[in-house]
Amino acid sequence: MTPFIAEILGTALLILIGGGVVANNILKKTIGEGGGWMAVTTAWGLAVFIGVVVAGPYSGAHLNPAVTFSLAVAEKFSWTEVPAYIAAQFIGAMIGAFLVYVIYKDHFDATDDAELKRAVFCTAPAIPNTFRNIISEIVGTFVLLICVFYFSAAEIDNGTGTKIGLGSIGAIPVAFVVWGIGLSLGGTTGYAINPARDLGPRIVHALLPIKGKIDSNWRYSWIPVLGPTIGGTLAALLYTILS
Amino acid sequence: MTPFIAEILGTALLILIGGGVVANNILKKTIGEGGGWMAVTTAWGLAVFIGVVVAGPYSGAHLNPAVTFSLAVAEKFSWTEVPAYIAAQFIGAMIGAFLVYVIYKDHFDATDDAELKRAVFCTAPAIPNTFRNIISEIVGTFVLLICVFYFSAAEIDNGTGTKIGLGSIGAIPVAFVVWGIGLSLGGTTGYAINPARDLGPRIVHALLPIKGKIDSNWRYSWIPVLGPTIGGTLAALLYTILS
Amino acid sequence: MTPFIAEILGTALLILIGGGVVANNILKKTIGEGGGWMAVTTAWGLAVFIGVVVAGPYSGAHLNPAVTFSLAVAEKFSWTEVPAYIAAQFIGAMIGAFLVYVIYKDHFDATDDAELKRAVFCTAPAIPNTFRNIISEIVGTFVLLICVFYFSAAEIDNGTGTKIGLGSIGAIPVAFVVWGIGLSLGGTTGYAINPARDLGPRIVHALLPIKGKIDSNWRYSWIPVLGPTIGGTLAALLYTILS
Amino acid sequence: MTPFIAEILGTALLILIGGGVVANNILKKTIGEGGGWMAVTTAWGLAVFIGVVVAGPYSGAHLNPAVTFSLAVAEKFSWTEVPAYIAAQFIGAMIGAFLVYVIYKDHFDATDDAELKRAVFCTAPAIPNTFRNIISEIVGTFVLLICVFYFSAAEIDNGTGTKIGLGSIGAIPVAFVVWGIGLSLGGTTGYAINPARDLGPRIVHALLPIKGKIDSNWRYSWIPVLGPTIGGTLAALLYTILS
Repeated sequence: MTPFIAEILGTALLILIGGGVVANNILKKTIGEGGGWMAVTTAWGLAVFIGVVVAGPYSGAHLNPAVTFSLAVAEKFSWTEVPAYIAAQFIGAMIGAFLVYVIYKDHFDATDDAELKRAVFCTAPAIPNTFRNIISEIVGTFVLLICVFYFSAAEIDNGTGTKIGLGSIGAIPVAFVVWGIGLSLGGTTGYAINPARDLGPRIVHALLPIKGKIDSNWRYSWIPVLGPTIGGTLAALLYTILS
Repeated sequence: MTPFIAEILGTALLILIGGGVVANNILKKTIGEGGGWMAVTTAWGLAVFIGVVVAGPYSGAHLNPAVTFSLAVAEKFSWTEVPAYIAAQFIGAMIGAFLVYVIYKDHFDATDDAELKRAVFCTAPAIPNTFRNIISEIVGTFVLLICVFYFSAAEIDNGTGTKIGLGSIGAIPVAFVVWGIGLSLGGTTGYAINPARDLGPRIVHALLPIKGKIDSNWRYSWIPVLGPTIGGTLAALLYTILS
Repeated sequence: MTPFIAEILGTALLILIGGGVVANNILKKTIGEGGGWMAVTTAWGLAVFIGVVVAGPYSGAHLNPAVTFSLAVAEKFSWTEVPAYIAAQFIGAMIGAFLVYVIYKDHFDATDDAELKRAVFCTAPAIPNTFRNIISEIVGTFVLLICVFYFSAAEIDNGTGTKIGLGSIGAIPVAFVVWGIGLSLGGTTGYAINPARDLGPRIVHALLPIKGKIDSNWRYSWIPVLGPTIGGTLAALLYTILS
Repeated sequence: MTPFIAEILGTALLILIGGGVVANNILKKTIGEGGGWMAVTTAWGLAVFIGVVVAGPYSGAHLNPAVTFSLAVAEKFSWTEVPAYIAAQFIGAMIGAFLVYVIYKDHFDATDDAELKRAVFCTAPAIPNTFRNIISEIVGTFVLLICVFYFSAAEIDNGTGTKIGLGSIGAIPVAFVVWGIGLSLGGTTGYAINPARDLGPRIVHALLPIKGKIDSNWRYSWIPVLGPTIGGTLAALLYTILS
């Protein structure tokens, strides 16, 4: 599996599971209707876990343009690979969002509230406020990236610096970090913390012939792109300064 | 423990814990009544964990005909062992479902709604729609199997390729994957994603003299068998193509 | 730390955290009032984790007479040590239950329902039925012990059989197993699955001058002692047969 | 990263995520409003995880004056470093609390209840009772520290005593311990179990121009400072006696 394919597949799984839990919680007549924020954030954490398990060994499992960009800023990833990674992430996010729609279509049709339908695809602020919403996305993504930079690998302390790869178990920390960010910092803007996670599905929302849909809220769409990019960059700068 | 016994024991534990949480949540007068989808899906994830802990070292802990079949399609498991594995999985699933009934019998008797009683045994779609329900089971099982194919083992990077077995801790990833699938994709059909998990208990439902029971919904019964088989096969094909 | 002290300390922590979550959920005016079965079972799983982390390296962290007895039946633990272990477990359980009372005394006083007060100490069946309640405790403890027997240690596969101790991380599997048992099989009798967990605090309930308390339900008290003992023994026998 | 910076950064992340989940649950118009005690305690556990992942390799990730003080009492940490660690923890806690306010300011403004606003910063007892509240904080912190003292590292049993560092995975046990303490013992005083976690944000509450705020409840403020210090010291003494 090439890194390009891995990023597509991993991000598609991320958005399929992440978008799926939103659909399951807010669309009508689903089995998990009204499951609440705990269920939503747990599943997003597990969505990251699933994406990282599959893509990790092949691409490093960025699954997020803010991760790719910030790693490049910190000189831990080559700028020449950035465009392909980000393209793959958007393709994957769009595939994932489309699959959520295919699976939950009958429940989209059973739901009247067009804002809920859109919320399956992309985030929206609880209280719209450009400055504060972008701050939320900056801080949430900063927390994600600062953890990514400081994740430490398992190793054997016998003087030879031997490293241990923990395999799929090694995907747990990033999943726990995203779980925590969601539970805590997700209450304002819904924690996009990932430009592809938000903009990719938003485009799918705009393209799909969803029954009774409203506009795709393009006016807000730049915040979950710019905020995470700034937040990740700040983490990269802090990491560089502290190193 | 032979692989045959291991698959029986592991699948029995899987269905005992999995069916048990459904009983605890939807039957009347239980201590956990109305616990919600988060509780149900968490316990199904832990049910997989328990089954894999016990059966893993002896049979590889497939516990699911879709897993066995897909591994064979991908040439990672011998076709000659497939029939015995699947038979063991069905035997185990039926034992597990029977034990759930034995434990929760007084609560079955205290429950009037016959559809709830049946739901302890087998899945049913929130909105019946043959095409879309089968798609749900295909995608859910595809996610499970693509993760199974790409789980990576722990290893030591000292140039000798030494592998580490993480023991029971190694059962966590598949449990987390099933937890995520349930929370996200389970909202439509209740995520059988396992022919034995659904058909085995359905047969037990048909056989048991449950007070005030309805039919076992045979009309739907082929979907949680065919869907997971297709979904797993697609994952096997994708895995083979990408290898 | 001697094994005797370790079993006291570990079981005290188990019952402190386990009893504490029940108090927090069902007594009046607590911050966590009405948290539900998910919260209760999660904390009992974590209670096991905490007890095992502390006692594990010193006593093996049985923390449960059914575990001690079953390990002896399976000839994996010396019969001569059984009495001291069980005595320590009861002492620890009583200490833990007493501490819960000390911490939550104002909330005991604020609660009128005497059955709820008792439920902080010991289990009671949702639907009293001697035969079926004992079956519940048998099956729940059987699942716990069969997992205990089949937990597998981490190891390095380099031909020398080198074992890895995962330290505190190694306490996760038993915590997950107890979490799953609680969510699924706890709905009938409240899953004592441990004679000391139930009888020790019940004695404390009888001794303490709790305001407005009712009897300690001694008529039921033998079931969470005998059931787990039988369930564990059956697991030991199955394990011995399959070995 | 120096230990001083690591303690600031780790504690800031701890309080950002921990305070954030309280804000998300109790302030008005948030997406996670009313998520409940399970969500709150899960996020506090994950907050510890995040703080430890980042600070662990650089400072040992105390993030809590009671941890620093107790480790010194047990002669596992140098007294000369104690003042700087504690100062860093308070600085970090104040930064984290300030960030929560910045992110959730619109929701503070949308909330009328001034006690809820204060609860985002610092703890308050469900039933005020000086003696019993301090006991709660003592016992909660005792459980935390006794676990910290007895956490065991991973190692390889090949006769050479080789240790394995599990990297970020190694932060899971302390997160699980805090999760369990919160679910169980947090029902009385809200489990500060950390003087910096409570007093730092309380000072921020006093300083910030929060709309419609009440006093910072200084009368209670010494309990979450003294209680954890006593609890941790008792754990250090018990650990020393048992060693």
